[in-house]
Amino acid sequence: MKISQNHIQDTNKSGLQSHKENFDFLANNLSKKGANVEAIVSKLKDFQVAIPSWALGAGGTRFGRFSFYGEPSSLEQKIQDIGLIHSLTQTAGAVSLHIPWDIPQDYAAVKELANGLNIKFDAVNSNTFQDQKDAKETYKYGSLSNTSEAVRQQAIQHNLDVINIGNQLGSKSLTVWLADGSCFPGQNNFQTALQNTENSLKEIYKGLPADWSMLIEYKPYEPNFYSTVIQDWGTSFMLANACGEKAYSLVDLGHHLPNSNIEQIVSVLMLKGKLGGFHFNDSKYGDDDLTVGSIKPYALFLIFNELVYGMQNNPQNPDLAWMIDASHNVKDPLEDLIQSLEAIQEAYAKALLVDQAELKAAQLNNDVVKCQEILQDAYRTDVRPLLAEARRLAGGALSPINAYRALGVRDTLIEERGKHTVATGL
Amino acid sequence: MKISQNHIQDTNKSGLQSHKENFDFLANNLSKKGANVEAIVSKLKDFQVAIPSWALGAGGTRFGRFSFYGEPSSLEQKIQDIGLIHSLTQTAGAVSLHIPWDIPQDYAAVKELANGLNIKFDAVNSNTFQDQKDAKETYKYGSLSNTSEAVRQQAIQHNLDVINIGNQLGSKSLTVWLADGSCFPGQNNFQTALQNTENSLKEIYKGLPADWSMLIEYKPYEPNFYSTVIQDWGTSFMLANACGEKAYSLVDLGHHLPNSNIEQIVSVLMLKGKLGGFHFNDSKYGDDDLTVGSIKPYALFLIFNELVYGMQNNPQNPDLAWMIDASHNVKDPLEDLIQSLEAIQEAYAKALLVDQAELKAAQLNNDVVKCQEILQDAYRTDVRPLLAEARRLAGGALSPINAYRALGVRDTLIEERGKHTVATGL
Amino acid sequence: MKISQNHIQDTNKSGLQSHKENFDFLANNLSKKGANVEAIVSKLKDFQVAIPSWALGAGGTRFGRFSFYGEPSSLEQKIQDIGLIHSLTQTAGAVSLHIPWDIPQDYAAVKELANGLNIKFDAVNSNTFQDQKDAKETYKYGSLSNTSEAVRQQAIQHNLDVINIGNQLGSKSLTVWLADGSCFPGQNNFQTALQNTENSLKEIYKGLPADWSMLIEYKPYEPNFYSTVIQDWGTSFMLANACGEKAYSLVDLGHHLPNSNIEQIVSVLMLKGKLGGFHFNDSKYGDDDLTVGSIKPYALFLIFNELVYGMQNNPQNPDLAWMIDASHNVKDPLEDLIQSLEAIQEAYAKALLVDQAELKAAQLNNDVVKCQEILQDAYRTDVRPLLAEARRLAGGALSPINAYRALGVRDTLIEERGKHTVATGL
Amino acid sequence: MKISQNHIQDTNKSGLQSHKENFDFLANNLSKKGANVEAIVSKLKDFQVAIPSWALGAGGTRFGRFSFYGEPSSLEQKIQDIGLIHSLTQTAGAVSLHIPWDIPQDYAAVKELANGLNIKFDAVNSNTFQDQKDAKETYKYGSLSNTSEAVRQQAIQHNLDVINIGNQLGSKSLTVWLADGSCFPGQNNFQTALQNTENSLKEIYKGLPADWSMLIEYKPYEPNFYSTVIQDWGTSFMLANACGEKAYSLVDLGHHLPNSNIEQIVSVLMLKGKLGGFHFNDSKYGDDDLTVGSIKPYALFLIFNELVYGMQNNPQNPDLAWMIDASHNVKDPLEDLIQSLEAIQEAYAKALLVDQAELKAAQLNNDVVKCQEILQDAYRTDVRPLLAEARRLAGGALSPINAYRALGVRDTLIEERGKHTVATGL
Repeated sequence: MKISQNHIQDTNKSGLQSHKENFDFLANNLSKKGANVEAIVSKLKDFQVAIPSWALGAGGTRFGRFSFYGEPSSLEQKIQDIGLIHSLTQTAGAVSLHIPWDIPQDYAAVKELANGLNIKFDAVNSNTFQDQKDAKETYKYGSLSNTSEAVRQQAIQHNLDVINIGNQLGSKSLTVWLADGSCFPGQNNFQTALQNTENSLKEIYKGLPADWSMLIEYKPYEPNFYSTVIQDWGTSFMLANACGEKAYSLVDLGHHLPNSNIEQIVSVLMLKGKLGGFHFNDSKYGDDDLTVGSIKPYALFLIFNELVYGMQNNPQNPDLAWMIDASHNVKDPLEDLIQSLEAIQEAYAKALLVDQAELKAAQLNNDVVKCQEILQDAYRTDVRPLLAEARRLAGGALSPINAYRALGVRDTLIEERGKHTVATGL
Repeated sequence: MKISQNHIQDTNKSGLQSHKENFDFLANNLSKKGANVEAIVSKLKDFQVAIPSWALGAGGTRFGRFSFYGEPSSLEQKIQDIGLIHSLTQTAGAVSLHIPWDIPQDYAAVKELANGLNIKFDAVNSNTFQDQKDAKETYKYGSLSNTSEAVRQQAIQHNLDVINIGNQLGSKSLTVWLADGSCFPGQNNFQTALQNTENSLKEIYKGLPADWSMLIEYKPYEPNFYSTVIQDWGTSFMLANACGEKAYSLVDLGHHLPNSNIEQIVSVLMLKGKLGGFHFNDSKYGDDDLTVGSIKPYALFLIFNELVYGMQNNPQNPDLAWMIDASHNVKDPLEDLIQSLEAIQEAYAKALLVDQAELKAAQLNNDVVKCQEILQDAYRTDVRPLLAEARRLAGGALSPINAYRALGVRDTLIEERGKHTVATGL
Repeated sequence: MKISQNHIQDTNKSGLQSHKENFDFLANNLSKKGANVEAIVSKLKDFQVAIPSWALGAGGTRFGRFSFYGEPSSLEQKIQDIGLIHSLTQTAGAVSLHIPWDIPQDYAAVKELANGLNIKFDAVNSNTFQDQKDAKETYKYGSLSNTSEAVRQQAIQHNLDVINIGNQLGSKSLTVWLADGSCFPGQNNFQTALQNTENSLKEIYKGLPADWSMLIEYKPYEPNFYSTVIQDWGTSFMLANACGEKAYSLVDLGHHLPNSNIEQIVSVLMLKGKLGGFHFNDSKYGDDDLTVGSIKPYALFLIFNELVYGMQNNPQNPDLAWMIDASHNVKDPLEDLIQSLEAIQEAYAKALLVDQAELKAAQLNNDVVKCQEILQDAYRTDVRPLLAEARRLAGGALSPINAYRALGVRDTLIEERGKHTVATGL
Repeated sequence: MKISQNHIQDTNKSGLQSHKENFDFLANNLSKKGANVEAIVSKLKDFQVAIPSWALGAGGTRFGRFSFYGEPSSLEQKIQDIGLIHSLTQTAGAVSLHIPWDIPQDYAAVKELANGLNIKFDAVNSNTFQDQKDAKETYKYGSLSNTSEAVRQQAIQHNLDVINIGNQLGSKSLTVWLADGSCFPGQNNFQTALQNTENSLKEIYKGLPADWSMLIEYKPYEPNFYSTVIQDWGTSFMLANACGEKAYSLVDLGHHLPNSNIEQIVSVLMLKGKLGGFHFNDSKYGDDDLTVGSIKPYALFLIFNELVYGMQNNPQNPDLAWMIDASHNVKDPLEDLIQSLEAIQEAYAKALLVDQAELKAAQLNNDVVKCQEILQDAYRTDVRPLLAEARRLAGGALSPINAYRALGVRDTLIEERGKHTVATGL
């Protein structure tokens, strides 16, 4: 299935007049306060977030998975799904491949398909947290950190293979999420594990093409429940520094201990020029992988406030690889992704509304009440007309969710693919 | 200092035209969606939150307290301070006394003062977590739960005294926050402590006037750091049931373990007809007592969504005693309270916008995406014009913070009271 | 495979002399302090913990599962595995069946098998958190709490079927772990979900044989990541009270929010006569299901201290159903269970050493230092000789782990069953 | 009051015989397993922990403080108190001064006093989290991180003054605990705050004598409740690296988010040669500052296991500055410290029992069960006879708590000092 511009324009028609009124009213109000509405809308239009290839099917937990209908059963169908979302939202113009789940069979065909849907190939992801069928070595006790050189070599080689695959598609970065760690005190030696990891990462780093970057993810726990080798930003940062200037930290919103101040971590990494990637999701308890913005939208805004600040003030930091990393256990995965994309754009738009000069002045004045008023004024603004305008200008839907339903996308996919297909992945 | 209606109208003048435009535009949009805007504004206007008598001065931590200027040094000045906030916000029409910090000297005068400022006397609060000068018994090892009958009797009598004080002022409820617990494993016997507490509460309950209620607060830790006798809603609920129908649980937002689902607790207590009081604040780590809505405004909205649902669907539950229970460590206490009141009204207004019928239909349909859209649609609405309209109709300020500053309230208070006054309390 | 008494005595031989010396030395020391060593050893000997039928194979996480060799592939083999553990430890004399994973084909044969191994049938467990093949209704949006009556009826009927199965085997209780809840705010109505759950539980309760009990488990989150219907002991307790005197709460150590004081919950439930069952495991972050005592052995001791106190002082509370509920991701499941059983016995033995009279005196005296000394004195005692003696007297191994390895149990199982068998379960 | 050797020997007399038996039995058992008991006892004897000058009086919370009797009211009396503990435990041979609470009046006299009690002057601590009377600038909005240069200069100068004081006493390190941060989002600019802090620390670092080190403490929250400038080990480590080779991180057990794996942090810092100091206490919820080992003794053991490993394998790491940093709210401060010292020695002794070679072999073999057995074997050993022996050899009490009580220390102190003295500090 492919959604044509005509279809989108048709679904937009009925809401166009009221959108225009809302947008004009808001734009007028914001302009009076000094905001450059046109520039903000333009930034929203340019902002693109990658969809991971594993996120197009229903997710699950260790207690099982409830099936969903019409899931994509091939990489091509996954890219088509992203194409559907992108046509409606105009903000999902990239795919992030997970290897070995989604190794292309025909590179040229896959690239052509993605190209036709305006989808770029963003960071590629390796997998050394599961054993693959017929693998010689097992990752049960670790991969890049394993005490066995043979296991480490297999894991290193896998990462090099992933780089090679990504390179053929136009990707420019490798994301390494390392699940390595231990389930019980004493199981591994923290120092040995860290040193092995550093050495393994350096081997992979050597294989990076000149214009690539390596993104090192961190996470405090799960799937290991006592220790994780790269447990926090400090460890990731240390390893990125050890590898070299093309190595960066990657922040995943769900990968923190309770009550962490994530926005401060983001800010510090950007100051140091070491924030390379960002994974969006939301959570209440652990790495719950819920829809972005569904639980703590204000925290998301505060994080975006730091991201915007860094993008404006930290030239030492590279462009970021943005990706949604959520699991869709009880929703249509495509609708879930649309809701995530909307929440991301909303937080971005509100952060762009913060008057940074005024904020700085209030901070220098220790006017804490004013500082809070400035952030809350931006946050309390209903920015949905700005998002709709950005989509409209780019040819997307005024309301992607409504359009998705009006166009009967899921029913068409079920018709095309059958009910009981299952996407590869977790 | 007292703020006259004229002064408020003056400060409103310049913003009135733009307020009217914003309100009309929003009201029109909401009406089209089916909302009864007039009814919502009316509810906002009626909603009153008590200010505790200890919250008018600067707060601190165990590491010390930084002073603030022009603090009230008597109960009368505290009530005047609340009068100032109430005149601007029209939503702080009550005071909640803390005994023994604020025992009236002249009841008639205090009542007349409050009456003149449209301030009611809400729940009275006892204090058995500190030793008072010349007290016969010490609460170091507990009060209502103490193994010593003499200590328990002193604590019971204090609560009866507090009821007596409140009764003379027109209060209708007693809030019991019991800090009792232990700092080390083994220090007390959980069962004995609970039974003593139950018996002591029953004694106090016997002294309740017929039209009074007793509100039993719970808290997991602090100032005791191993166990707390009334550690959670389950314990509070059990004790309230044991005491009788005039005993209720009281929820304080900061009194929960990390990641608690507070809105569910609120909902269950209202279903059982046992939610009697509610303390507002916000927090990131523990009982941080920050400005309401400053950290997790979406959680506050979700809680209000349950409160509104309960107020509409649970006739078995009584009217609630609302109070702000925050500490003002780095802000002008009065400005801090104004920000809290604004955040409360905002969450309430958004909750009132939720289309309950539509939500119920989506829930019955297991349309999880739609359920989320309904809540987020309400939450994303910029309801500030509704709040301003409610205040305007009640004679308050369009923007209380701006008016407070424009009227130079703090400077006047410093002039009247001197710089280095210190409010009683923590 | 079956381990004979002869084999066990053989493995014990070399350590017997040193065991005797250690035991005598310890017993002498303890006796001097006033402990009744014989009585303690006798209690340890009598203490039996059920092994759940799903715990004999390797566990996993949502990120996958690493295989283990020689897993049992039938209920009979699972019971044999428990028999192996029990013969070595003499403390695993019960099995807890999970339905529908382990429905007996031939009841008489299964009973005879278990009987021959001295294994009783403890609580039976229902499963309404997964859809079974060919099930008419799906539990994706809940089971006992579902808004659809048909779904609730299917879930109720399943529980009644489980009772029926258990009844044929000699079980006397049903454990209901209800995963029902929601992943997103708004997804369900808290009050409706709770009321449906209460009504469903009452239906199941009606089907309980006269000498059975129903154990209601609680858990704050997972597999649902926003809310869980039975989120805490307070909810479980309320539901148990609503159902009747044969309904009890069940505590699982991993089912609490961070920093919960579990021992206090245990104590309060026993005081109220409502603690019916207990699931052992350990965890650092969430419901990690690690080996008992591997992370927080002192907390386990403190909990046992309350259990022992309750067993001695709360005749209103029934005998408890004890079970290990852990997941074996990186260890041989049988070795893991042996380690868990050892840790349970250790905590129990230490709790039995606490001088309750002395503790009570210190508590009444508010001698906090002494209270701590009393608990720590018991905890710091090396009680392993007591455990070994209890096992020896019952015909078990002095060191179960060493015996397990010396006897080459796993190798024999692999030989008998083949390498790549997979146990049913998660 | 001073405790003489004669008094101690007297109190030891009655327990000597039974101690000898217990020690011999244990030593014999351990020797059979390959442990070098003499070497372990010798290490225990050499291990000295500093007592901070603020810990000799009763502590409190933001809700108040319950008084205790006979508190020291001068620096001299504080040092005498430490002398009392040291004479009994022989493991508290150092004091850590807090400035400005404990500035010596007469340096020579104070040094002579300490010298006579075998007490060294360990790290000195600065205080920029409180305003001192007559201070020109306020730290309300930060000190080393403040946006005002004048405030930063005042804070830098204070630290230089503290170095100067310490230098006159023989201290060799400065501990900087920086409470700076913010209570509300937007209050400060994370990047500016961090850069100001780094620059301020570099200024202080310039003033360090050649043989001194600077210890940089971190803490996630409190007294600031939204953000803290040095929020975690990663930030502290980054700042220490920026300052130079004499700057190190300092770990305080209570300064971590819930569920942190502290032992891994310790291990990584030692690998990098950057762990300079260590503060002992225990906690269940936040920075509760409870008696060491009173809540999570196994975690303490695991941390000591890494400390011992690092001391044996990481020559790149300096000797550590050890200190107890607890608050004594419900116990006699001296008894509380004695319990803490005992718990520290216990954890240290158990860590020394771990067979590192065997552990390494099991780790290389991925024998997770064995790894756990090795750690638990050490942990489950009752090492109290080793501690008593080390104390006996050094001239201390077999049981310090019992001796303290038998000698009537507190009563004598009350007699000497009066009941209602109050120690300076929090």
